[in-house]
Amino acid sequence: MTQEPHTIRFSNIGETLEVPVINQLMAIPLEKPGILSLAAGFTDNLALPVELTLDIISKLPETNPNNEFLQYGTTQGRPELRKRTADRLNSLVMEDDRAFAAEDIVVCNGSQQALFLATQTLCNPGDIVLVENPSYFVYLSMLQSLQVNPVGIPVDESGKMDFDAFAILLDQLKNESKLHKVKAAYLMGYHANPSSRCLSLEEKQGFASTLKKAGLIVPVIEDAAYRDLAFESMDPTPSIMSLRDYEAFPRLYLGTYTKPYATGLKIGYGCCSHKKWLEKILCAKGNQDFGTSNFSQAIIERALIDNRYEALTRELGSHYGKKAELLHEVLENAGIQNKGWHWDKPTGGLLFWMKAPESVNTDMGKAFCLECEKQGVIYVPGSFCFANQEPHNFIRLSIGALPDEKLVEASKRFCKVIHSL
Amino acid sequence: MTQEPHTIRFSNIGETLEVPVINQLMAIPLEKPGILSLAAGFTDNLALPVELTLDIISKLPETNPNNEFLQYGTTQGRPELRKRTADRLNSLVMEDDRAFAAEDIVVCNGSQQALFLATQTLCNPGDIVLVENPSYFVYLSMLQSLQVNPVGIPVDESGKMDFDAFAILLDQLKNESKLHKVKAAYLMGYHANPSSRCLSLEEKQGFASTLKKAGLIVPVIEDAAYRDLAFESMDPTPSIMSLRDYEAFPRLYLGTYTKPYATGLKIGYGCCSHKKWLEKILCAKGNQDFGTSNFSQAIIERALIDNRYEALTRELGSHYGKKAELLHEVLENAGIQNKGWHWDKPTGGLLFWMKAPESVNTDMGKAFCLECEKQGVIYVPGSFCFANQEPHNFIRLSIGALPDEKLVEASKRFCKVIHSL
Repeated sequence: MTQEPHTIRFSNIGETLEVPVINQLMAIPLEKPGILSLAAGFTDNLALPVELTLDIISKLPETNPNNEFLQYGTTQGRPELRKRTADRLNSLVMEDDRAFAAEDIVVCNGSQQALFLATQTLCNPGDIVLVENPSYFVYLSMLQSLQVNPVGIPVDESGKMDFDAFAILLDQLKNESKLHKVKAAYLMGYHANPSSRCLSLEEKQGFASTLKKAGLIVPVIEDAAYRDLAFESMDPTPSIMSLRDYEAFPRLYLGTYTKPYATGLKIGYGCCSHKKWLEKILCAKGNQDFGTSNFSQAIIERALIDNRYEALTRELGSHYGKKAELLHEVLENAGIQNKGWHWDKPTGGLLFWMKAPESVNTDMGKAFCLECEKQGVIYVPGSFCFANQEPHNFIRLSIGALPDEKLVEASKRFCKVIHSL
Repeated sequence: MTQEPHTIRFSNIGETLEVPVINQLMAIPLEKPGILSLAAGFTDNLALPVELTLDIISKLPETNPNNEFLQYGTTQGRPELRKRTADRLNSLVMEDDRAFAAEDIVVCNGSQQALFLATQTLCNPGDIVLVENPSYFVYLSMLQSLQVNPVGIPVDESGKMDFDAFAILLDQLKNESKLHKVKAAYLMGYHANPSSRCLSLEEKQGFASTLKKAGLIVPVIEDAAYRDLAFESMDPTPSIMSLRDYEAFPRLYLGTYTKPYATGLKIGYGCCSHKKWLEKILCAKGNQDFGTSNFSQAIIERALIDNRYEALTRELGSHYGKKAELLHEVLENAGIQNKGWHWDKPTGGLLFWMKAPESVNTDMGKAFCLECEKQGVIYVPGSFCFANQEPHNFIRLSIGALPDEKLVEASKRFCKVIHSL
C-alpha cells in the first residue's frame, strides 16, 4: 500500500460496507497456529475428492472435444450441467418430477452469488427480508451492506416456527405500514446454517399459509446448501419447488456443489420459478462476471454424467456423520448438559448449534469467548446469527475442517472452559 | 418455467436491469449455425493450454500438500498467486519495481468482477464515470444498470485523447455543478477493447494533469486485460501504478489470466493503491461470493511458479499476431480502404476497430448489419461502445474465436457486403 493522499467519496453501499467483526475471530488461527478452530465453515481436507477430480480432468479432452472446457461458457452456465442438476433434483423421491428445469437454473460462484444477485434485484435500502432466526450470518451481513433489514421469523422453545407469533408480527408490520417493505423471505430447508435443523413439511406449509393469510405474496428463497450432506438418508421433506402451497410465490431454490463436492471449485446454482426474476438475475450476472468458471463446471458436469457424484455425497455424508458422532460424544461425556447446555445432534451438514444457560454470554470479547481463545479453541458466537443480534447464549461449532484428533482436542478444550467458568 | 402468478416488485437496480440488445446479436450463431461470428470476444479453442493445464493439475497433489487446492481459499485470493502476480508485474522493464504488492491485490472471477466491485463501492445512481470513447461495452452496460452515467473523454481524429477539449468538458461539468458527480475514471491502457489502442505515455500524463488542473482527484481505474496478449513485444508505456503523475490519485489496476491463459478458468485481479478502497472491495466480495475458485487459482499460481506462463503468453501473442495479419490481409486485398473504410492493424489483443464512411450506419437492424447476417457474418456495432451511443459508423471485429480458414471466410463475407452496398 503506497500512500493515501486523498479520502475517497464512496457510494452509499461503499460507505455501508464494513469489515465484519467476525473476521477478527476467523483470523485468530492464522496468527496463533496453536488455536483450533471450530468456527470456520471449511470442509475436511482429507475428504476432498482429489483422485476423483484428477481422474475426471484427465478424461475431459476425450469427453469434451474441441477443448471447450477451457473456453468461456455462457452467463447462465453449461446446459448439460444445468440439465443434469435439474434431472437429479427431480429424481429425488420427495420431489415432484417436474419441479426443476434446466432453463430455470443459473450456475453461480457458489450459491452465495445467486443469493446476492437475487437480493440485489429485489431489495432497495430500507426494505425488509424475512429470515429464520437464527439465520446464515453471511446473509445478514450482505443484507446490512445493502441497507436491507432482516426481520426474524418467530420460533418456539424447540426452534420450530411459531405461526401464531408470526401472524402477529406480520400484523404489526401492517399496522406500522411496513408490510409493503417486505420484499422476500429466506429459508434454509435442510440442515440449516447455523441451527442444523430441517424445516418440516408442516413448517413449510404453515409458513406459506401464514404469508398468504397476510396477503404477502413475495419471492421465497430456499437455501439448500447442505441438503446433499445428509449423514444417513436425505431429509424426506420436499423443497418449496415441489410444494403446491408455494405455487403462488415466485421461488428461488439455491443448491451447491461447493460443500458436497469440493469447496475449491465454488460451483453453486439457483433454480428460479419466475421468468422475469431469472432474467434480472442473469442480466446482473452478465454485468458482474458474465459467467462462472466453465472448467469447474465441466468437472462437476462429468461427475454427474458418470454417476460419481451420488456415491461421493454418500461417502461424505457418512464421513461427516462420524465426525458429528465424535463431537457429540465428547460433549456428552464431558457432562456439559449438566451445566445447562443443550444441543441436538445434527442429521446432516457440518454444524452443531449449542444453547448455553442464559447467564453465559458467548459474544466476542466476553469472558467465555476470551477463555476459549486462551485455551486454544474458537467458535462462532451465536448472536451473529440472529436478526437483531440477540440472544447472547448460543454458539455455532463446525465439525468440518478439523481432522478427528484435533476435533476431539478442540471440543475437550471447549468443554473445559464450560466447566471452568 | 412453471408459471408467473405474480408481478414482482423489483429493486431500483432490478428495474433498471435489462437484457442488453447486443445479446440478440450474440445469440444468432447459436440459432443459425452457418453464421460466422466476428463479434464474440472468445479466444481460439485450438490455442487453449490443455496439455499445460492437465500437466500442472496432475502435479498439484505433490506441490500442494494436504489437498488444499480443492479447499476454500480466502476472499482476497491465494497469497502465493498474489505475490507471483505482483513480482511479475514489478519485473516488467517499464514498471517501477515496487509498483505492485501482493497485499494490494484481490483475485476475482475475471477482472470484470473487480471492475464491478470497484464501481459499486464508488458510485451512486446519478454519478458520473469518465470513460474512453469508445470504451468497453460491457462496462457501459454495467454503469447503466447502476444508473451511473458514462461521460466520454474527447479524442481527436486519430483516436488520441484531446486534452484541450477534455479541459473544456470538465469546465462545462463544473459550470453545470456536475463535477462533484464524477466518481472515477476508467482507462484501458493496453490494446483497448474495442479500439486496440495503447495509451501513450503522453496521453497518460496529459490525462492526469488535466484532471489535476480541474481539481478532480478521483479514483482512476486502468483495465489492462489485454496487456499480456502483445503480438511481438509488450507495449513500453508504464501502467498508472508506476507513474508519478498518478501518485495523487487512488488507483486500481485490473489484470487478468482469463484471456492470456484460459478463458475457462476465469481468474482476474485488481491491484489497488488505496487501502480503504481495497477494504471496501474485499468486504463487498466477502458478501457476494467470499472468494474465487481456489482450484483455478492454484493452476495459474503453479504456471507462474514454474515459469510456464511467460512462454505461453509469447506463444499466444504470436498466434494472435498471425491471425491479425490474416484478417488485415483479407481486408486490404479486398480493397475496402478504397470504399472509405479505415483501420489500424493492432499490435496486440483480439480486436480490429474499423471506421466506415459516415454514410454507413452499422447499427443492428440497419441495412449493413442485416446484409452481413444474410451473408453469414456478424460483428459488434461500434455504437454500443460509445458513451452516448454514437457515431454509428464503427465496427468491432474479433480475431479470437474463429480458426484461420473460417476467419478468412468470415472476413471475405464482410468485405463482400461492403462492396455490395
